[in-house]
Amino acid sequence: MSTVTIIGAGMMGSAMAVPAADNGHQVRLIGTPLDRDIVASVQRNGFHPTLRRTLPGSVTAGQFEELVPALAGADLIICGVSSFGVDWFAAEVLPHLSPGGTVLSITKGLAEGAGGSLTAFPDHFAAQLPAAIRETIRFAAVGGPCISFELADRRHTLVNFCGRNADALEHARELLATGYYHVRCSTDVVGVEVCAALKNAYAMGVSLAVGLADREAGGLDSEAAAALCVPGAPDRNPIYNPQAALFAQSCLEMSRIVALLGGNAALAGLLPGAGDLYVTIFGGRTRRLGTLLGRGIAFEEARRLLRGVTLEAVAIITRTARAIRLRAERGEADPAAFPLLMHMDAVLNRHAAPDPPWEKFGL
Amino acid sequence: MSTVTIIGAGMMGSAMAVPAADNGHQVRLIGTPLDRDIVASVQRNGFHPTLRRTLPGSVTAGQFEELVPALAGADLIICGVSSFGVDWFAAEVLPHLSPGGTVLSITKGLAEGAGGSLTAFPDHFAAQLPAAIRETIRFAAVGGPCISFELADRRHTLVNFCGRNADALEHARELLATGYYHVRCSTDVVGVEVCAALKNAYAMGVSLAVGLADREAGGLDSEAAAALCVPGAPDRNPIYNPQAALFAQSCLEMSRIVALLGGNAALAGLLPGAGDLYVTIFGGRTRRLGTLLGRGIAFEEARRLLRGVTLEAVAIITRTARAIRLRAERGEADPAAFPLLMHMDAVLNRHAAPDPPWEKFGL
Repeated sequence: MSTVTIIGAGMMGSAMAVPAADNGHQVRLIGTPLDRDIVASVQRNGFHPTLRRTLPGSVTAGQFEELVPALAGADLIICGVSSFGVDWFAAEVLPHLSPGGTVLSITKGLAEGAGGSLTAFPDHFAAQLPAAIRETIRFAAVGGPCISFELADRRHTLVNFCGRNADALEHARELLATGYYHVRCSTDVVGVEVCAALKNAYAMGVSLAVGLADREAGGLDSEAAAALCVPGAPDRNPIYNPQAALFAQSCLEMSRIVALLGGNAALAGLLPGAGDLYVTIFGGRTRRLGTLLGRGIAFEEARRLLRGVTLEAVAIITRTARAIRLRAERGEADPAAFPLLMHMDAVLNRHAAPDPPWEKFGL
Repeated sequence: MSTVTIIGAGMMGSAMAVPAADNGHQVRLIGTPLDRDIVASVQRNGFHPTLRRTLPGSVTAGQFEELVPALAGADLIICGVSSFGVDWFAAEVLPHLSPGGTVLSITKGLAEGAGGSLTAFPDHFAAQLPAAIRETIRFAAVGGPCISFELADRRHTLVNFCGRNADALEHARELLATGYYHVRCSTDVVGVEVCAALKNAYAMGVSLAVGLADREAGGLDSEAAAALCVPGAPDRNPIYNPQAALFAQSCLEMSRIVALLGGNAALAGLLPGAGDLYVTIFGGRTRRLGTLLGRGIAFEEARRLLRGVTLEAVAIITRTARAIRLRAERGEADPAAFPLLMHMDAVLNRHAAPDPPWEKFGL
């Protein structure tokens, strides 16, 4: 039996407790200061209120004040915060790590630096470690298609663990892989993690077509235009040619961004890119944003309607578009190679009407 | 004004009449002997009974006996038969072609030859031309995501025209591209056409997960298990992690088959592969077959339930699996690199229960 400590009691972090517990490990689930109510509920009767599932009995939950003892002796530490909690994790958790540990991050996103630099979180975290332990902590991250509810329900799920240390990846895989949680390891951190971040951006792009079809069909009053879609619900207007064109363009642009940042572009058309994009379009919350925008709802209003929903797409679109423009100033990137990304950025940040530039798409 | 002659009045062939007519061309739609009722209906009042749309007024329909005059003076000939009509097209139409013509095929599939050879239809047709005109006819084909209904409704659609002669591709593109029918040209016939054929195979694979989720949820009596799904209908059990894993594995195996046959493997993760797979899963008929199989319906029974539906997936799975086994005997392919294809073949042809080999998936 090993000990797995999860920091962040949101849906995805908490869902990781299920395969860990099923493998017989002791699981310590530590909430951030935003997770107080969740932790209190799990402590009371095991029920996770946003995941809407009861966690296995071997999971013990603790508030953030219990962080330091929860880290002691952990064989694996899982960073389960959202991309908006990355700085918090770096400031509040990294200083308490002991030498020799392995940290597996489920956070999807890219850290923005000067001059258009974009850094995957495993590398971003490593750079912020205290010098005394920097060389001893091994960072890894999870990419690939995984909806938290479905992992908690033990549905077959295929993911990538990526990191620069192959031994650390195998260590994490041995602790977490089960008969339903299938893990493949990759040392291409940029390839896997850039796709993991960008799929949120492009899922919004594909979903624009869902909302545009609703608008073209007519009959959308303001209430219907503002109605939130839910995963698995019937499409009001099931039209797939435009979605498929946007899906393919998304894979193309993801492959170009991965190449630009130094990863294997082919991953954009495989599990980390196309696979994760697929699940995010159909099971993720980003679809709601893209659908609302496509129906003609302005971003500010869409954000209000989606209050409480973590909109990682907005951050990743904005910062990736900005990074490409900055690199273009140095002749290191061509914004024309990313017409869908630039269009999404204009819709979110410059009040452009959603109207995909079809003629600019394709090879 | 040019003349476009379409041979085959099925849904996809007939839908091609819409952009051709919108570009101001004279369109001649010639049915095969299977299309007599369709042609009679279009002749009567323009209504296409299976496409369920009225064709533009500049489309003139004719029975097969009118083939020879309809070919005369055509600037572009579109082969609109299904993959089961390829031999018919070769025998009945090719001999009547005049030197210097361009043929654009919308037929998706691969011709099977000795020793595991699989040939894209443009090359297959070219090889069967009378020697006197073989060098003068230019063959091209359409790949990429396009549901016929949506093209007929003028939805934004992005496709690839592929062929060995770039001038012929540009000629066809100029005749057919519109503000909604977006065309990119590629001389990678193998890359585009192998994906176009395989997407039918792998759409069945992804759809297995739809049916498996229904079965796992329980409560499926024989009537519910045999109920056909329709595009856009709500999923009984919207579960996406397994679908996404199968989608990504599909892209991986398509890329390997494209590489094996000499095309650009990257296309499997772009418009011809991932994009066309996406639309086939959601808008195509293959999803019905995969869903029924996943629910536990045997193939023979599923075929009976789907009578009247063209099941191109079955042919392409069977012949591609056979080709890989034949090549394996010569050490030219490894069936272990295609675990999903081999599983689908076993389900269709050897009564295997649908149970995807998850542990064999991924890089």
